Amino acid sequence: MINTIKTFIPLSGTEEALVADLFREIQLPKGSYFVKEGQVCKYVGFLQEGLLRYYINKDGQELTYEFARAGEFTCNYASFLDQSPSDENIQALENTSMLTISHNNLQIFYDKIAAGNKFGRLVVESIFVRAKRQIASLYSDPPDVRYLQFMDLYPDLQQRIPQYYISSYVGVKPPSLSRIRKRLSMP
Amino acid sequence: MINTIKTFIPLSGTEEALVADLFREIQLPKGSYFVKEGQVCKYVGFLQEGLLRYYINKDGQELTYEFARAGEFTCNYASFLDQSPSDENIQALENTSMLTISHNNLQIFYDKIAAGNKFGRLVVESIFVRAKRQIASLYSDPPDVRYLQFMDLYPDLQQRIPQYYISSYVGVKPPSLSRIRKRLSMP
Repeated sequence: MINTIKTFIPLSGTEEALVADLFREIQLPKGSYFVKEGQVCKYVGFLQEGLLRYYINKDGQELTYEFARAGEFTCNYASFLDQSPSDENIQALENTSMLTISHNNLQIFYDKIAAGNKFGRLVVESIFVRAKRQIASLYSDPPDVRYLQFMDLYPDLQQRIPQYYISSYVGVKPPSLSRIRKRLSMP
Repeated sequence: MINTIKTFIPLSGTEEALVADLFREIQLPKGSYFVKEGQVCKYVGFLQEGLLRYYINKDGQELTYEFARAGEFTCNYASFLDQSPSDENIQALENTSMLTISHNNLQIFYDKIAAGNKFGRLVVESIFVRAKRQIASLYSDPPDVRYLQFMDLYPDLQQRIPQYYISSYVGVKPPSLSRIRKRLSMP
């Protein structure tokens, strides 16, 4: 994680030690939740190992709109920022190991690390652009486009997760997913 | 604008002068565009006077998802950040006066203002949360909820803009808007 932070900003030796101090390691067993609908997202996490999916419950359907893998930061930012209940779920699809930082400790990070706010700004900017595109795509792109996007963004997940989650991302029932695959592989 | 910035971070006299230097004033006549679909959003703007609306073209329909009034910052951030073509429109509904800062000058702002990155982080955080909620609502909330949201967020606009734009925000044709109004005013 220190190396990931250093791709955005420089960190002195003292600052590295402080960062190590502000985060703590947690384990999320497969199937459990990092954030659940209706609960407050209390931490920003950094994935060391494992896999998460983000989804919304809508009319009894699970709409999956993102996956996060090792080396990525994760958070329901809308809930975390003002510590309000989340309207989304972030679930571990594999046994997942994370480093997490609380809302309080993140404010210490911003105050004590020289370029802390720059790091925060750059990370929020990138999350912002991605989240906005993903939400817009979830609601407006047709299934074929969603499937191509899945293959483009998450080529490694095709073999790694049950088909149900791919269908949920594409926005169709599993049999339709097979038809989309067949159609898209035709010349 | 200086006062708005000061609600987020302190500014020294020298910094105030620099900020004044980095922004320039522009006039947008009613009906013209701050950002047009397919073009790059080159500036972040601060509204001194006037009114903007944000909309997406989808299947020949204009989906309005936000309005901005005097005292607010405006930008298609997704386009501005990596200077890529915008998939949205930001249009002046009244003669609008703005202070704008270019991508280059904003980097100077971040580098030279002591708490510049903190300001950037806080503004992006608030834009992020609002934009994500608005996009999700645009695609998933039913017309009645959209209308109540319009009245809640923009009570002053009801008399200020043509009905067409309210319909476009609610996601219905103008005659349906009258029906929604009637239904919601019943006990």
